[in-house]
Amino acid sequence: MAFITMQTPRNTKVFVPALTPFHADLSVNKPAFITFCRWLVSQGAGLAVFGTNSEANSLALSEKLELLEALVEAGLPADAMMPGVGLCALPETIALTRRAVELGCAGALTLPPFFFKPATEDGLFAYYAQIIEAIGSDGLKVYLYHIPQFTGVPISCALIERLLKAYPQTVVGVKDSSGDWGNTERMLREFPGFEVFPASEALLEKALPLGAAGCISATANVQPGAIAQALQLWGSAQFEAAQARLKSVRNLFQAHPMIPALKHVVASHFGDSGWRHVRPPFTAADGAWADGLSQQLAQLDFRMGQA
Amino acid sequence: MAFITMQTPRNTKVFVPALTPFHADLSVNKPAFITFCRWLVSQGAGLAVFGTNSEANSLALSEKLELLEALVEAGLPADAMMPGVGLCALPETIALTRRAVELGCAGALTLPPFFFKPATEDGLFAYYAQIIEAIGSDGLKVYLYHIPQFTGVPISCALIERLLKAYPQTVVGVKDSSGDWGNTERMLREFPGFEVFPASEALLEKALPLGAAGCISATANVQPGAIAQALQLWGSAQFEAAQARLKSVRNLFQAHPMIPALKHVVASHFGDSGWRHVRPPFTAADGAWADGLSQQLAQLDFRMGQA
Repeated sequence: MAFITMQTPRNTKVFVPALTPFHADLSVNKPAFITFCRWLVSQGAGLAVFGTNSEANSLALSEKLELLEALVEAGLPADAMMPGVGLCALPETIALTRRAVELGCAGALTLPPFFFKPATEDGLFAYYAQIIEAIGSDGLKVYLYHIPQFTGVPISCALIERLLKAYPQTVVGVKDSSGDWGNTERMLREFPGFEVFPASEALLEKALPLGAAGCISATANVQPGAIAQALQLWGSAQFEAAQARLKSVRNLFQAHPMIPALKHVVASHFGDSGWRHVRPPFTAADGAWADGLSQQLAQLDFRMGQA
Repeated sequence: MAFITMQTPRNTKVFVPALTPFHADLSVNKPAFITFCRWLVSQGAGLAVFGTNSEANSLALSEKLELLEALVEAGLPADAMMPGVGLCALPETIALTRRAVELGCAGALTLPPFFFKPATEDGLFAYYAQIIEAIGSDGLKVYLYHIPQFTGVPISCALIERLLKAYPQTVVGVKDSSGDWGNTERMLREFPGFEVFPASEALLEKALPLGAAGCISATANVQPGAIAQALQLWGSAQFEAAQARLKSVRNLFQAHPMIPALKHVVASHFGDSGWRHVRPPFTAADGAWADGLSQQLAQLDFRMGQA
């Protein structure tokens, strides 16, 4: 650690790609979603609703607009929200981003257009530029979403540099879900002040010393309070144990299909088996491995937190 | 050729993933789209509107619904239409498919859900099954769309077999855009009677003897009449020359970004430079290579056909 420059501590944050609950007919269970998001906020987490682990790309644009409005109407704090807004088609991305800004959301987590590949840097720059120009608001804070294993369209450091130069007040951060620590490290070192969020709480010990903004993590759905607490403990003697604990829990989930596994555990916590529904192409947690996961979590004395 | 069993000649067809024209502000140019589709039909082609080369995944659902309705209102024959209907989210795919069936479209070209990967065979089967059950109409004819280089989600022969067993009257064909002839050949041999469309007119000489249904090809945007004619010439002495000619033209386009190249040539043909607009992540045809392409086509004495 001797050669790592410690950044000034910043106001770090955990954002949760909040799971989306469905009824048996696979329509969205809006009340359960609001209840869940309220619980996440009560645990000290921000809401990256409509992230990958929200099954965002299995939700219609109209459903996302309705859910975002419902959260704000229910009194949840828009300044703790960073909804995923990146869709395939520019007009739809603009529509969702515009609504997020109007509602006062803290940020807009924006996938690149993810069907056509390979995409050129010019094409991706034009895509983001058109969103930003179309919204034309100081209230827009764009967080780029780098998740090449799903999009096939990476967000390169060259693209970030170009966007930062053109829109320094608007393009403010990135979520790096690549799972490639070398890439996260490069983003952290090349763009000081830029808010870099690794996609796992297991990376906090490596990312925080380099100035990471916190994390946006699938497993924050089940341990939001513990992650928020670990962020507060950073720099203290207790951080190491907190980090180790976060990792043990995360490792258990990573051995299974993530979304069904998370929904299985949330279903148990809230005593609502309907939480286990997923939209295809996902399939619900299977009895055998799901029971095994529950047992492993029990052995760790894992609890999601007060409901 | 001696070991290839010649299938009974069938009513083969060329479908065009019709390009989508945009105004300078990148809104859809509906009149130009209708004019173009009318021209394609006049050349003897069917309309696979909202295909990959239509920039379908850069179009909003609302734009697709509006364009499809506009085509039918303009008197274009719905029984010559096989719109691309496969979006990421099941409810949106169902909405577009339902409208296509209501309008009397001959088929629905259906991508798998293309964000989450890898997808399981169970999950993909459930996805297609839910579309089919939700529509619940004999009028629905599903054509599966295999284009793994863009989706990351292949349509396997095992999945086809399972869908054919469950929905033999509804799942009627596949477009194979993999570019892997071995895969196309396997689909043709394993599923006799199933309508297999290779994604290039260059493959007709190999695919027609095995019973292919025709082709659905990007370059059918610029040589629809020539492809339709080649299909009619199949089995005659003139087919070989027609096939060679189709290949020479296609090869020229394959050396460039396909959509910008096609739009460049269509713009010249219709004398409307607005045709060159593309939505990001694409970038419009660049002067240097576009001029070179025009010259090469002129050297081939290429003409799109009577406008």
